[in-house]
Amino acid sequence: MDPIKSETHAFQDYYPENYAHCYGCGRLNDHGLKIKSYWDGDESVCHFMPRSYHTGGYPNLMYGGLIASLIDCHAAGTASAAKAKADGIDLETHPLERFVTASLKVDYLSPTPIDVPVEVRAKVREISGRKVWLDATLLAKGTVCAKGEVLMIQIPDKAKN
Amino acid sequence: MDPIKSETHAFQDYYPENYAHCYGCGRLNDHGLKIKSYWDGDESVCHFMPRSYHTGGYPNLMYGGLIASLIDCHAAGTASAAKAKADGIDLETHPLERFVTASLKVDYLSPTPIDVPVEVRAKVREISGRKVWLDATLLAKGTVCAKGEVLMIQIPDKAKN
Repeated sequence: MDPIKSETHAFQDYYPENYAHCYGCGRLNDHGLKIKSYWDGDESVCHFMPRSYHTGGYPNLMYGGLIASLIDCHAAGTASAAKAKADGIDLETHPLERFVTASLKVDYLSPTPIDVPVEVRAKVREISGRKVWLDATLLAKGTVCAKGEVLMIQIPDKAKN
Repeated sequence: MDPIKSETHAFQDYYPENYAHCYGCGRLNDHGLKIKSYWDGDESVCHFMPRSYHTGGYPNLMYGGLIASLIDCHAAGTASAAKAKADGIDLETHPLERFVTASLKVDYLSPTPIDVPVEVRAKVREISGRKVWLDATLLAKGTVCAKGEVLMIQIPDKAKN
């Protein structure tokens, strides 16, 4: 059973408070992007509307660093959610485990417009112990603008103290 | 001769106005990071102080998406500057050519603190036509926290119109 009530809660809503300040996805970071990720079948999805100042090299295109950030944070949330599902964790009594990025590769395939919402999708390729490999895509108006390959590593218990 | 007067000007200061709005490195983007890159021998260097809200998963560590962004924009500036040097471009009469990211890979090696300036360094591995491959590192307090491999592609003339 999927412990995340994804009809009403995003993955990031389950992060413990001390892990909810990430600039990209922390619900408690008022300056941040506060991205929200949800299950969509066996993939995950996040929708994000760039701000007008999130421009890239061209003024009508989206900033590449933001694309990398969205893929990174969405993959982190997906890794957490997937691990919880795989381990059968009861989120009423156990917080969502947090992951850190070990490796992030982004291929920029097509210019991404700044004036439409983008969709980031991720799929878990493999879970092995504390490691989760994911593939991600970022789409705008149905076009795949970027692809990502991400390796996430679960924060060990002793590192949390 | 290096056309960039790097004692007084950053690479980004030579971008034409319509390419100076990038969220990461555009001098005309008032909301952005406005990173500045300079030559340091045959490498390039950029120093950046993260804002207090640029936190990552842990509240005392720097956001990984920002690390990717700094590497990306610094590599783009370095590609432009290196190509200008290789082509013997006179920047008094010809603007700095702009590059876009084709591929960005970041390996996160060590947690990056949020409360100290970071140093991003890049070195050109190869220039081939419109392509520039670069290797980058991001350091904090002398420790290499992340490494990057970046492929930059020069914007073709016809795409500028």
